[in-house]
Amino acid sequence: MFPKKMRLCNGGICAPKGFLASGIYSGIKDKGLDLALFYTKSPSKTFVLFSENRIQAAPNIITRDRILKSRSACAILINSGNANCLTGKRGLLDAEETIDSLAKALRIKKEVVICASTGIIGKRLPVEKIKKAIPKLVDSLSTNGGNLAARAIMTTDTAKKEIAVIFKTGSAYVKIGAIAKGAGMISPNLATMLCFITTDANITYDALKSALKEAVGVSFNRITIDGQMSTNDMVTITANGMAGNPVIKTATRDFKIFCSALNFVCERLAKSIVKDAEGATKFIEITVKNAFTKEDASNIARAIANSPLVKTAFYGEDPNFGRILAAAGAASRRVNPERLKLFIQGAPVFKNGAISNFNFDELRRKLKKEDIDVILDLGIGKESFRLWTSDLTEEYVRINSAYST
Amino acid sequence: MFPKKMRLCNGGICAPKGFLASGIYSGIKDKGLDLALFYTKSPSKTFVLFSENRIQAAPNIITRDRILKSRSACAILINSGNANCLTGKRGLLDAEETIDSLAKALRIKKEVVICASTGIIGKRLPVEKIKKAIPKLVDSLSTNGGNLAARAIMTTDTAKKEIAVIFKTGSAYVKIGAIAKGAGMISPNLATMLCFITTDANITYDALKSALKEAVGVSFNRITIDGQMSTNDMVTITANGMAGNPVIKTATRDFKIFCSALNFVCERLAKSIVKDAEGATKFIEITVKNAFTKEDASNIARAIANSPLVKTAFYGEDPNFGRILAAAGAASRRVNPERLKLFIQGAPVFKNGAISNFNFDELRRKLKKEDIDVILDLGIGKESFRLWTSDLTEEYVRINSAYST
Repeated sequence: MFPKKMRLCNGGICAPKGFLASGIYSGIKDKGLDLALFYTKSPSKTFVLFSENRIQAAPNIITRDRILKSRSACAILINSGNANCLTGKRGLLDAEETIDSLAKALRIKKEVVICASTGIIGKRLPVEKIKKAIPKLVDSLSTNGGNLAARAIMTTDTAKKEIAVIFKTGSAYVKIGAIAKGAGMISPNLATMLCFITTDANITYDALKSALKEAVGVSFNRITIDGQMSTNDMVTITANGMAGNPVIKTATRDFKIFCSALNFVCERLAKSIVKDAEGATKFIEITVKNAFTKEDASNIARAIANSPLVKTAFYGEDPNFGRILAAAGAASRRVNPERLKLFIQGAPVFKNGAISNFNFDELRRKLKKEDIDVILDLGIGKESFRLWTSDLTEEYVRINSAYST
Repeated sequence: MFPKKMRLCNGGICAPKGFLASGIYSGIKDKGLDLALFYTKSPSKTFVLFSENRIQAAPNIITRDRILKSRSACAILINSGNANCLTGKRGLLDAEETIDSLAKALRIKKEVVICASTGIIGKRLPVEKIKKAIPKLVDSLSTNGGNLAARAIMTTDTAKKEIAVIFKTGSAYVKIGAIAKGAGMISPNLATMLCFITTDANITYDALKSALKEAVGVSFNRITIDGQMSTNDMVTITANGMAGNPVIKTATRDFKIFCSALNFVCERLAKSIVKDAEGATKFIEITVKNAFTKEDASNIARAIANSPLVKTAFYGEDPNFGRILAAAGAASRRVNPERLKLFIQGAPVFKNGAISNFNFDELRRKLKKEDIDVILDLGIGKESFRLWTSDLTEEYVRINSAYST
């Protein structure tokens, strides 16, 4: 159920009532904002999803531990420029020290502060710089700070990613706001990224958790840039209940409305991460249809999306369907060439085991568009999977051979 | 058992007694040799390994069918510039037509002719051009033709890949010769490539088959350039028995000697494929040690080798160990960060859950070398796996966005 009259609104994560944010420069990076904070007065229901990488960054270990215990938070501290990952016990102590310092400055318990980091792996967090910057970070908190927070969590992103929506549940208006960052090391689960979502909805913890899982499943878990699962991925949602709506419970009409709005927010941000993929020039939607199992559909879609040959072909605006089918054929034993149908930009390029009679020149022209649409029909079952990805360019190589992440 | 006094010799696939070869230009490609043939007078034991991609090129389907039936061949016809893949029934008829034409010109039965193709997928094979060129191809057959055949099977390869060795089994000298081509779409099983091996050894079919499987397992199945399994992979070995050695049977001393020589040949060619990888500047050996299972070791080694972030870091000569460990942590649930030890160019960069005290500047200098050595000790079992790969450069992207394969 898509929310009637839902519309975009300003303010990002500060759009929902009662959320303040700030973003400043603390000296972790050479330049640009690198420290973000967002805050709501009373401990608020918070659910977090993490990267499934076996190598977990210190902030992820600490945040997971806190959220398992308290299920709530007042403040989230985020730094860019340093991932505080593979830093051993020292890394955990460093993260705790910045949390303590922030809790004191905010005069709240440290148990309701969580944290996230993104940036280079394996370097010690510059704790003193962060501690020194915290008073200014707290002083800068404002309802206009969402924009600065969105900028402060960026690494190789070229544009900030934020969104907010307003919609009605029952008689009350509810808002959801969010910020995210990409832009490399992006593959589920989760896509390698950070995303922080706020809402003033009055909602049960179970409903909040189940809504976030669903939304991430159809958005951040459906994107891949380079097939690389990060160590620092995190998606948080914090609900402070200040919208005053009747409490949203699972399996209700209001829950469906809330889910639709949250799906919309996450899908928008997931797409914006792929559109801002390192060095990318194309946004590619890959749909695998009529697979025997969901897993097959997903494996094949991911194999196509992560194939450097497919990615470079789209960069070259070349309708190289052979690379797409070869990637599919390598990904699953159930692929039957006789049953495959492939559509690129709507053109039926392959069916009945051979190349079709399509207008090659027209397809080449259509490939000059930024948005690319690939549909592979396996013709052997009923399951499907849709994935978004980007092309692979010289610029991706330049960024990642020069920049340490 | 490494063959005593084994040495390299000239002649490539024509080094073994009784093999003739040729390579000419037939007009499939815009320029450069594109049609190769090798031939031995009487039907000779032949075993072939194929790509495991579910999409199989027409020449692979035909060659598999023939070899299953006859286990022998007199001639192999190879073209570059066109893969004859995803060409449906038409592609099968086209390949058969070139085989018929060659069989007539050689005055042999078509059942003892096999074929292989490499090049663009999904375009019809230019049968008339090939048929027209066959008389010249047959006329050019000579004991000096190995070199031309090696050049005629190249696509994006920048150098031909051929080798021959001579060694003693019993009282007789035996030779093995081989040619191969890379250089993109390289990943097991098999690495995406063509390799044709000749030998004058007198050997049973079972011994020949088992020797090739072993050799491919430790060579072509241990390389990856871009993680892409091709549709046209093929490794053939043909033994005409003309060396006059006592017949080599499995589980004998002579068999071990033959295997060692064949392993050496395949390992050399596998390495030369990686060294000539599209756009590559580095040759990277990745060893995963002390894994719980062989599969874990292999999965982790492949995940590291195929990571575009690891590959671009080595291109940038950046000791970015975080990307290596993140790739490992994403590849297996059994990775335990506390037990990992990572060595890059011999430097112990990571242990006990954190970065070690190593000389960063010295390691940076060592990364300027062309050969890179990575050892990841998982510390949880006894299995290991070694893999060769290349870096990822702007040139790879340029080649693959401009060139249709």
